Amino acid sequence: MENQQKVFVHMAMNAWNSHVKRADALFSTLTDAQLMEEVAPGKNRGVYLVGHLAAVHDRLLPLLGIGERAHEKMDDAFISNPDKKGIELMPVADVRKAWEITNQKLEEAFSKMQPEEWFMKHTQMTEEDLAKEPHRNRLSVLISRTDHLAYHLGQVALIKK
Amino acid sequence: MENQQKVFVHMAMNAWNSHVKRADALFSTLTDAQLMEEVAPGKNRGVYLVGHLAAVHDRLLPLLGIGERAHEKMDDAFISNPDKKGIELMPVADVRKAWEITNQKLEEAFSKMQPEEWFMKHTQMTEEDLAKEPHRNRLSVLISRTDHLAYHLGQVALIKK
Repeated sequence: MENQQKVFVHMAMNAWNSHVKRADALFSTLTDAQLMEEVAPGKNRGVYLVGHLAAVHDRLLPLLGIGERAHEKMDDAFISNPDKKGIELMPVADVRKAWEITNQKLEEAFSKMQPEEWFMKHTQMTEEDLAKEPHRNRLSVLISRTDHLAYHLGQVALIKK
Repeated sequence: MENQQKVFVHMAMNAWNSHVKRADALFSTLTDAQLMEEVAPGKNRGVYLVGHLAAVHDRLLPLLGIGERAHEKMDDAFISNPDKKGIELMPVADVRKAWEITNQKLEEAFSKMQPEEWFMKHTQMTEEDLAKEPHRNRLSVLISRTDHLAYHLGQVALIKK
């Protein structure tokens, strides 16, 4: 059973890592000016989506019970409110930095987790919830956030010429 | 071990199903005229991305060893070539139909698969490959195609007003 868990964690982690890498590569090819562009006319700007991803990933630390948040202050501009609603964004360089540092923190925390820990409950559910729905666990959160990352990555990629 | 496998398959299948449903819902809110629009200036049109997803999903049938392709003819226009390169596309209604039918075929085939079958090799690898890299299996293909779907879904969603 242990070996099966390891294989499954490997699969989900591969998908996560490859998308974080793709995002890193994409964001680094875009200039600050490009990140200030909308991904399509009237839609979110690149910088908003990078900040949104950074803030959502920062939230993974307490949700998975593996660390403290460092970027709560980003929620207002990048999660609770849509882009271009008058809320002043952080400088692009700081948004990039938040993205990088958050993923480094996650990588470090993930590297210390044992396969079986991924199948435990996350902090927003009870042991009873997990007993009833064992497929709702920490790893399912990672799978869902990978899809979320892919979704917005496809949008930011449209800025590229 | 059997029970664990069932939980893994449930997790990956939930992610797949929820994205297929989101795509169905999105595509049905878009008119044919909207699907003929580019997702962003100079980028792929909605119809191209729906056809691309239909053709890629159609390829899953032989890749997973669960059925025959029905839409090989879509590859030329929707996979091998980029959009707007002079290749005539099928009518939008046929593209929508291909998307629907392909996912119905997959759903039917998936419903007949036992959890352990998902951890077997897909048809583009050998038993030796699987022994060396057990995380490369049919379920990893499904996870990867879910990410692929999410990526393009984020783009097609930009057409929505």
